[in-house]
Parts: sequence; structure tokens; C-alpha cells
Amino acid sequence: MRYELYYWPGIQGRGEYVRLALEEADADYADVARGARGMAAMTGMMEEGSGTPPFAPPFLKAGKLVIGQTANILLYLGSRHGLAPKAEAGRLWVHQLQLTVADLVLEIHDTHHPLGPSLYYEDQRAPAKKRSEEFWNERVPKYLGYFEELLQNHGGAYLTGRRLTYADLSLFQIVEGLRYAFPKRMKAFERKIPGLIGLHDRVAIRPNIKAYLASDRRIAFNEDGIFRRYKALDI
Amino acid sequence: MRYELYYWPGIQGRGEYVRLALEEADADYADVARGARGMAAMTGMMEEGSGTPPFAPPFLKAGKLVIGQTANILLYLGSRHGLAPKAEAGRLWVHQLQLTVADLVLEIHDTHHPLGPSLYYEDQRAPAKKRSEEFWNERVPKYLGYFEELLQNHGGAYLTGRRLTYADLSLFQIVEGLRYAFPKRMKAFERKIPGLIGLHDRVAIRPNIKAYLASDRRIAFNEDGIFRRYKALDI
Repeated sequence: MRYELYYWPGIQGRGEYVRLALEEADADYADVARGARGMAAMTGMMEEGSGTPPFAPPFLKAGKLVIGQTANILLYLGSRHGLAPKAEAGRLWVHQLQLTVADLVLEIHDTHHPLGPSLYYEDQRAPAKKRSEEFWNERVPKYLGYFEELLQNHGGAYLTGRRLTYADLSLFQIVEGLRYAFPKRMKAFERKIPGLIGLHDRVAIRPNIKAYLASDRRIAFNEDGIFRRYKALDI
Repeated sequence: MRYELYYWPGIQGRGEYVRLALEEADADYADVARGARGMAAMTGMMEEGSGTPPFAPPFLKAGKLVIGQTANILLYLGSRHGLAPKAEAGRLWVHQLQLTVADLVLEIHDTHHPLGPSLYYEDQRAPAKKRSEEFWNERVPKYLGYFEELLQNHGGAYLTGRRLTYADLSLFQIVEGLRYAFPKRMKAFERKIPGLIGLHDRVAIRPNIKAYLASDRRIAFNEDGIFRRYKALDI
């Protein structure tokens, strides 16, 4: 079965967590909206017609199923492609970690959009500065400290031990994204999270991920995505 | 088996979505942190000791399992208590709806905390006003319009048709909360969502929910929770 991924064609965004899982699994998929007439197809799928229209991209078509919400897509893919434990306890635990990553991603987005997603960054520069300050003082230590402690205490290469899960792929992306958006702040912070940096490096050299990152399927970071490099926020 | 719910004892917050599901299911549970020594028990569970420490409350202890993240807890409870379809497609769809509710809940929280969760509302009144304005102009119509359309198109009493799911209970709570926090704005908006209001009313008179709402197990809304009534934000 060939999966169809639907996501905005110009950004990594939330679609990237799904792309990383599909690539690691060497799954057959089309990144539909990046192709000709792809955007029209995506918009069409969001109409009520299907009975289960997604609220927003990304969503994945898998045979007859249309699955929305990033963490939900990963829940579906994880058990099918060896990216999560099959037993219920492990499955729920990895999903829980992914939902915590999703909360972090929303807070990252809020650093440049504290007044809401419908306004431009240029119209909320001052609050964005304050929110970014709070984010780095309070939230980054809390979130990344949590994952760091898990890594240290489980003593493994990955969050749940020896085997990679989709949550590890997502944490790789978090490290990549924070390095892109906040190079100064992240450089100063990295010494506090040696476990996470190690995880990042192990993911980066996995053959399928390495090939993906070097391909043109990987969209470059840019200022339309979740991770945006604004000098004023990185002091 | 007696469930143990762990959540902040003084607020409805995110724990309320779990409480509503447990109450509707007539499940046996203890709201641990509301009892004597409950807070100490909750804090203890968040230490690494368990191997799978939750990032934040709410979390549910179900036998040996400790499950964190509201939507993840509902995913677990749904299939066990007839609050979600058992088949994969339906299960994923209801979970997807719940994750969309979770996104909305985060945006509701941001109306009074646009500069971040660690600062007081009193230190972010002006940005909170702007964020609330954007929330009601753009986000409420988008989110509630989405759920309204689902209800209208499926022609049923509940989101997925004739049978109640945990996502319906959560939407009941959204309507209750918006009425509490933004009485003026919500009153003006309700005529646009007759289906959702109907769903709210049907949930409110379900025997188990009705009994719960009248009991002292239901904590009153207050200004420490997600839904806060600040006059300046409700104009």
C-alpha cells in the first residue's frame, strides 16, 4: 500500500514528524501537496465529503483510512512499522511522550506568535520577545530536562531503551529545529542535555534518515514554519 | 479495578475531561490529590521511580499502568467503557477529534496567558486582550464551526452519530467553559452553533453526568483553571 501524506508543501512544520517516521520505515509514500495539483487534492480532502474531514494538515491516507493529527498518525504508523512497541503499555507510553512533544511544538510556535496564529509575526514583535524569554527560562529546561532525565535513567541509546521509536525521531527534529531557530540560546543550553544531543546524533546517522536529510525531499527550515530564525528572539 | 486519577485538586482543568469520562462510565475511581496526603502521592508519582513518569497531571493509574496526557487517558478508557468505537478506524477518528479539542484547550489557556504559562495574568493583561480578540474573531469560529459542521452532516445526536463518545463529553465541557469564561461573547456566538448547543444539552441530562454535576465531586469553575472569567477579556 502506498501512503499519501498531505501537508503544506513549503515547510517542514508538523508534517516533518510524519515524514521522518515514513522515511525511517522506508515506507512507500507520496508527499501529495508537493506534486502538481497537490494543493487542490489536499483542500478537497478537507471538505466534509469523506465523512471524517481533518481539521488541519497533516493527514495521512492509508487505504480507505484518512488519519489526522500528527500524534495520531504516528500512533497508527508506529505499530505497523516497528517504530513503537506492540504491547499496550509500551504503545501508550510512546504515544504519551509524543503528545508531550506536541505540546512543546505548540509552545515553540507561540514564541513567534504569542498573540495568535492569525496575526503576522511583524505585528507581535514585542510580545514575541517576552514569550521567547519565558520559553527559554522556564519551558525549555522543563521539557528538555524531562526527556534528558528519561534518557539518563533508562541508560539506553533511545528514549525507551535500545530500540528506536517515533518519539526519538521527533526529538531529533526538536534539537534540529531549536538549533536553527535559536542558534545562540541553543548553543549555550546544549551542555545541559548531553543525552538528547547523543540521541540526535544517533538518529542523524541512521542510514534511512541520513539519506532523507541529504535528499530534496527534506525541505529546508524557513520563516514560514514552526521553527523560525528571528534575530530579535535569539539573544 | 479501582482507577486512581491524579490531578490538581482545586481546578477542573484538563483533569475534567477524564473525570467526565469516568463519571459517564460509572467507573470506580479515586480522585487522589483531593484526599488527605493526595498531593504528596501525586508528586511522588511524577518522580522517575515508576520508569514512566508523566510530564504533568492529569495521569491515571490503572492497575500497573500509569497513563499520562489527557487524550491518551481517554484513548485507553474509551475502548474499555464503551465511550469509543472498538474498530480501529472509529477509534482513531474519535482520538483525532479529541486531539483537536486538546489544541483548542491550549488556545483557550493562551487567551489569558499569551506570554507563557509561568507568568501571572496580571503581568500580561494587554497581550491577553489582543489574544482574546483574535481567539474570538478567528479561532472560535474555526474550531466550533468544524465541530458544528460534523454534527450537522452526520445528522446525529452526537459527533459520530447515535452513540456518545468521550469527544462529546469534552465538547460539553468546552461549551460550559466558554459560557463561564466569556459569558457575553459566548451568548452572542451561540446562535451560530445550534448543533453543539443541542449536544451540550443532551450530555447535561444524561443520568450519570447530571448526578456528577450536582455532586461535590464537580469542582466549580475558578480563576486558577483553564477557563477564567476576566471581565476585560469578555467585551
